[in-house]
Amino acid sequence: MAIGEARFPKMYSVPGFKLGVASAGIKRPGRRDLVIMEAAPESTIAGVFTTNAFCAAPVTLCKQRLAEGNPRYLVTNTGNANACTGQAGLGDAETVCKAVAESVGCAPSDVLPFSTGVIGEPLPVQKILAALPTATSGLAEDQWENAAHGILTTDTRPKGASVSFSYLGETIVVTGIAKGSGMIRPNMATMLGYVATNARVEKPILQALLREATDLSFNRITVDGDTSTNDSGVLIATGQTTLPTVSDQVCELYQLLRTAVIEVHQSLAKAIVEDGEGATKFVTVEVTGARERSDATKIAYAVAHSPLIKTALFASDPNWGRIVAAIGYAGVADLDAEKVRVHLGDVLIVESGGRAAGYTEAQGQAVMNEVYIEIKIDLGMGQAKDTVWTTDLSYDYIKINADYRS
Amino acid sequence: MAIGEARFPKMYSVPGFKLGVASAGIKRPGRRDLVIMEAAPESTIAGVFTTNAFCAAPVTLCKQRLAEGNPRYLVTNTGNANACTGQAGLGDAETVCKAVAESVGCAPSDVLPFSTGVIGEPLPVQKILAALPTATSGLAEDQWENAAHGILTTDTRPKGASVSFSYLGETIVVTGIAKGSGMIRPNMATMLGYVATNARVEKPILQALLREATDLSFNRITVDGDTSTNDSGVLIATGQTTLPTVSDQVCELYQLLRTAVIEVHQSLAKAIVEDGEGATKFVTVEVTGARERSDATKIAYAVAHSPLIKTALFASDPNWGRIVAAIGYAGVADLDAEKVRVHLGDVLIVESGGRAAGYTEAQGQAVMNEVYIEIKIDLGMGQAKDTVWTTDLSYDYIKINADYRS
Repeated sequence: MAIGEARFPKMYSVPGFKLGVASAGIKRPGRRDLVIMEAAPESTIAGVFTTNAFCAAPVTLCKQRLAEGNPRYLVTNTGNANACTGQAGLGDAETVCKAVAESVGCAPSDVLPFSTGVIGEPLPVQKILAALPTATSGLAEDQWENAAHGILTTDTRPKGASVSFSYLGETIVVTGIAKGSGMIRPNMATMLGYVATNARVEKPILQALLREATDLSFNRITVDGDTSTNDSGVLIATGQTTLPTVSDQVCELYQLLRTAVIEVHQSLAKAIVEDGEGATKFVTVEVTGARERSDATKIAYAVAHSPLIKTALFASDPNWGRIVAAIGYAGVADLDAEKVRVHLGDVLIVESGGRAAGYTEAQGQAVMNEVYIEIKIDLGMGQAKDTVWTTDLSYDYIKINADYRS
Repeated sequence: MAIGEARFPKMYSVPGFKLGVASAGIKRPGRRDLVIMEAAPESTIAGVFTTNAFCAAPVTLCKQRLAEGNPRYLVTNTGNANACTGQAGLGDAETVCKAVAESVGCAPSDVLPFSTGVIGEPLPVQKILAALPTATSGLAEDQWENAAHGILTTDTRPKGASVSFSYLGETIVVTGIAKGSGMIRPNMATMLGYVATNARVEKPILQALLREATDLSFNRITVDGDTSTNDSGVLIATGQTTLPTVSDQVCELYQLLRTAVIEVHQSLAKAIVEDGEGATKFVTVEVTGARERSDATKIAYAVAHSPLIKTALFASDPNWGRIVAAIGYAGVADLDAEKVRVHLGDVLIVESGGRAAGYTEAQGQAVMNEVYIEIKIDLGMGQAKDTVWTTDLSYDYIKINADYRS
């Protein structure tokens, strides 16, 4: 089950960035489960990774290799996360990278590995190696949608986003794909994201931009509050343009690029929520009037994670008491219940420590009957704010996660 | 649905403590929903309350009155929480207390109000007032089980615990009842607890004892991570004994009493988990080898709150990868994945950053097939530890909370 439109967007190719897809038969025969990506030699690359202390073997390798150079090949398998696999897992990831390096003619340190799927099982290296030639021989700039399919696990839809803008007569493209539908939470999720642009960007600037865009997108979504061992996001700048290199954050090109990169990341993040496991509602929780952003974040996540609120959303029940309770236990110091105002959509439901005077159940019900729902909370304490996106909690969430071995 | 035995224990009466029950028809005609308790004049009383910033009107009144005196009447209604009801709610709680005071002949400040049920609806004061005479006229020391029924909401069973011990030829009794089955989490839950003893205890000692016992019981259980607006726990010492007053924490009588009070609180807390909404498993999460207790607590709750782990428990699936992932994202600094050892019951499932060498799926499955399951996590970092108790996450949890307006 997923919500909203299933239409895959038009994807602009990114000059200097190719993708190739194959079926390695890791979990199911015939399923696309292996993706290779190749960036032009002069590309820069940035990465953000899970903060989970049990990060997977490929994450460990990615971090090392990004710190030391500018890897330009990415190999992704689904069906097996190569996580909690100890030293053997590291060796397996290295074997796959080495095979990619040999087939394309680069150093193994130029290859970044990504894995997603079951935790704790040995990586089926031979299956991956056998499928590599198909993936590399198919490398082409127009394979974004194919690759979007090739990185999915429990997702029910491919997720892509693409924007372009003109600057001094040239076209800059930002295109990306992502996967993820459960374990979605701050600091990402069983989430893989790949975004590329043809702009030329210095590596530290690219890294800072990816951090900011991730913070405003993948780190602001939650389905079930779990954070995976494998979350990875990369941003690649191929430099296939005659425009000058972006080397600071004040130039006009950086500002245009920043807007585009954030837009692509937020589209991908929202697509992940729309495809949240068992989701029937897309919920925006916006907290304003906080003293500090961290206070707004705490309350937004307390509301977004509350199983009681999530089940009420599933039932389309305007149960504002549960929202108020979550605001109250979020742990924000000196919260003044009298000052808190809560809107459901445009309907004021809570003020002065209780139900708003003019509020009627019918008004709340009308908002809750929608698929896209906004919960807006004004703390009346200051100017800081934050927004997170989440889903409801349905029977299907239980079914999916009681049945699927992730 | 609830787990374990439904047998209500033998309840020892507490000399100097009476209970009376009535049906006020607040939510359903004929249901027991009003309870009065009366402590002997020389009693001392201690209380602990929700930390929710949106605490309910009765909680506000209780805190005031406990700070100023030794109230000895307690009036509890179910079916309506009198929470998020603003100034009108405070007035309603005062009206009920005043009526109790008039009928028993005490000052209104000697009455503590407790409410649990729907949030945000006006308290049906007239119904409560009409039923008061029935409750007060029935006051008797042998009404514990009847009162245990009278405080329930979504609970499927009454919850009681009672122990006694002899000291210098006299019998000291500790008896209590509680309610709660959802919104169970540290800092209590939609949880009401009433424990009484015939020991004579100075008020500050009683308060410290209640804090400790609550910390080791109601603050160590979680069903869904939500904390309610109305949680309240009280401990009453009626002083109906010729034994000396307990005025310090080193005397032998205090130590015996402490053990008994903690035992009663833990029994009640575990009974709440066993009656957790939709629960099919009772899960003990024990974290040892932490540098500080707070680290152990963080990890224990990360595991106990993970919807992925909870759905795996529901499915009896020994999905150790999800446990490892939760340990990893709990936010404990410098966690060394290589040192972490995880047991499912007595079966070692994780060591050296991956699946334990001798582990077989059949071993894990055997443990998961049980109703009472232990997840034991050794961090290998130090000597601190903590334990929490929780449930699985089932279809019935969704059903109960999508249907019930709490």
